[in-house]
Amino acid sequence: MKTWLSIPENSDFSIHNLPFGIVVRDGGKTPAVAIGDSIIDLAVCSKLGIFDPIDCDPSVFSAPVLNDFIACGKQVWSQVRKILQEQLTTENSILHSFQDKALIERKGAEMAIPVHVGDYTDFYSSKEHATNVGKMFRPDSEPLLPNWKHIPVGYHGRASSIVISGTGLKRPYGQTIKPGESQPDFGPSQRVDIELEMAYVIGKANKLGEPVHIKDAEDHIFGKLIFNDWSARDIQKWEYVPLGPFLGKNFGSTVSPWIVTMEALEPFRTNQVDQSPEVLPYLQGRKDSTFDIKLDVTHITPEGVETHIAHSNFKYLYWSMAQQLTHHTVNGCNLNIGDMMASGTISGQEKSSFGSMLELSWAGKEPIELKDGTSRKFLLDGDSIRINAYCEKDGNRIGFGSCEGTILPNPEY
Amino acid sequence: MKTWLSIPENSDFSIHNLPFGIVVRDGGKTPAVAIGDSIIDLAVCSKLGIFDPIDCDPSVFSAPVLNDFIACGKQVWSQVRKILQEQLTTENSILHSFQDKALIERKGAEMAIPVHVGDYTDFYSSKEHATNVGKMFRPDSEPLLPNWKHIPVGYHGRASSIVISGTGLKRPYGQTIKPGESQPDFGPSQRVDIELEMAYVIGKANKLGEPVHIKDAEDHIFGKLIFNDWSARDIQKWEYVPLGPFLGKNFGSTVSPWIVTMEALEPFRTNQVDQSPEVLPYLQGRKDSTFDIKLDVTHITPEGVETHIAHSNFKYLYWSMAQQLTHHTVNGCNLNIGDMMASGTISGQEKSSFGSMLELSWAGKEPIELKDGTSRKFLLDGDSIRINAYCEKDGNRIGFGSCEGTILPNPEY
Repeated sequence: MKTWLSIPENSDFSIHNLPFGIVVRDGGKTPAVAIGDSIIDLAVCSKLGIFDPIDCDPSVFSAPVLNDFIACGKQVWSQVRKILQEQLTTENSILHSFQDKALIERKGAEMAIPVHVGDYTDFYSSKEHATNVGKMFRPDSEPLLPNWKHIPVGYHGRASSIVISGTGLKRPYGQTIKPGESQPDFGPSQRVDIELEMAYVIGKANKLGEPVHIKDAEDHIFGKLIFNDWSARDIQKWEYVPLGPFLGKNFGSTVSPWIVTMEALEPFRTNQVDQSPEVLPYLQGRKDSTFDIKLDVTHITPEGVETHIAHSNFKYLYWSMAQQLTHHTVNGCNLNIGDMMASGTISGQEKSSFGSMLELSWAGKEPIELKDGTSRKFLLDGDSIRINAYCEKDGNRIGFGSCEGTILPNPEY
Repeated sequence: MKTWLSIPENSDFSIHNLPFGIVVRDGGKTPAVAIGDSIIDLAVCSKLGIFDPIDCDPSVFSAPVLNDFIACGKQVWSQVRKILQEQLTTENSILHSFQDKALIERKGAEMAIPVHVGDYTDFYSSKEHATNVGKMFRPDSEPLLPNWKHIPVGYHGRASSIVISGTGLKRPYGQTIKPGESQPDFGPSQRVDIELEMAYVIGKANKLGEPVHIKDAEDHIFGKLIFNDWSARDIQKWEYVPLGPFLGKNFGSTVSPWIVTMEALEPFRTNQVDQSPEVLPYLQGRKDSTFDIKLDVTHITPEGVETHIAHSNFKYLYWSMAQQLTHHTVNGCNLNIGDMMASGTISGQEKSSFGSMLELSWAGKEPIELKDGTSRKFLLDGDSIRINAYCEKDGNRIGFGSCEGTILPNPEY
């Protein structure tokens, strides 16, 4: 598809992508779609009548979050995408004629959190990550717990502290304990880490008491984004038994601004890793239930020196999104539109593909060398992390943009 | 205070209480206050000009949840309460003159969830409960884990499945495992249980990165209600390592309809249990930081036979609400208005004060005898649980009403 708009080669936001987000414009928040180096303002498009053929309330194109738009359903998401592709490839289309009003330069544009997140769940779906953490946190027992290959293990996280890419997060204070001690210490975490994750956004709700079966599970997903589940390992280690991580996680999670739809991801569908032992029948779905999404993690020093510290792939995960969603609702738990489901840290088999500094530095024993000659076990004040994600196949490339955040100094409690 | 309205002796809803809730009236939802056998419709009061002296947007009195009203602040909550007390004790007050319009019979009135819950956190603050569960779930180690007396342990729960008293919940399906087996089973939970809890509702938000200090913590609490954290013990036991309970809990939690304000609870303030070892300085608050609230649990068979199975007291908890809230925000985690913080099961030292069937039947080994001659280890289909809570001191009695729910049969997945 050839557009009248100039799109840089290798742009994350080719015409095959068209991800949805929320842009801040003139102080207000507006649904938007990314294309090349531009952002399409959907409120303007709606006022121009571009979406008139679509059967949905036009107010969804001017809401400050995407939830109402998502609630219009899969067919509407697809129609909007198709209409925009037509508008972008037709000379003298309405969008072309009114591009001064409807298009915004992407560089420097302020983005907002794309959905209101009712509930956020974090899974733990990488076998390699779970094994690595098990080895470090429970050195005296089997790294993978007995339930891990039967259950897509997950837990509830904090929705309120999910922030948009670019938000700084203060180094968290909390309780930690030294090995062999019985009295904990209090102070700023000394082991602030990242978790390289992706999250999906619920696109269709299910009622309380009505499970979603695995054959229908993907119909409940709107799209995906990059997710950094910042983690304070020292706080987490002391607090996490028996009810799971809490303050080691809920000081902030960062999402990328653009939600890439399942429709755009479809060409990159691929086979899930083999699961052995066989999972219970309610978790048995199609084999090609994952997606080939390349992931890159870059460390940035306070001075701006960039070091690529890890590359991984979404397809390495043991459990699929469909399995996660099916399991989450098997007991009748209701999911709402806009809820986020994060994957858990996505680690591969090679050390270079580990998705956290905990694993990359092996609990601090093997510091990560940076381009400026310094090294890191965990994050220092002023350090930033940028995660990029993209798919590429047969000359078709779509990307997620980037998910970036900085750890800020926190001088006092 | 003498009212023109006849209030039954020992009513939970004396003029000293005036709790807030949401009533369903003519198909719409409206903020309301309970008094005796009646409900005061705050939307009608507002239209009658009763709240004109209060500096807040009148739309908060007709919103479908209390969040906007709560956001008006502590002073407004107090003013509404005071004005209603004046209206109720003044002959020929506006409320008296228009009682046909403004008062609804409480019996048979439909109530709705009183707040939009952004995030829900469940603590684990009863030493007796944590000890009992530790003995049963981890028989080979110390029942109380090393962090328990230093940290008010808590975890994130599911906000979407919090339902109002009276809602039936289908018996959840899920994975369980037999002792000694390595392959899990799938089916309806055979160990559906209750957890006798109370929850508080956040009344004042804190921003991300800005902890609430313990001296200010109670200012962030709007009020309290009864909370039943239904639990499927067999699902929970298999899934809960290492990230905590998930599907064993999130099929539903039930709240009582009325939020009793901290102002109404003030006369029932009492000393917290002694904490030893001393907690870290950031958790050291006033000694009289808990409340004497009596709790009763009643089992009701499908045929309606009622058996009082436990009585406990909120003051038995080891950790105070102020300590929970302070700890929750110490890392900068932001709390929003309407968020709920549940206490965890409230058990006392005596067996008769245990707040779950797991403890009352000691994991099924000592069945609970019912009035109809049958017994229960856990809940059967059609069984209901009603929890009541009230405070009584010097002839002043205020109560929370009741929190009731029924486990429904679930014939197929």
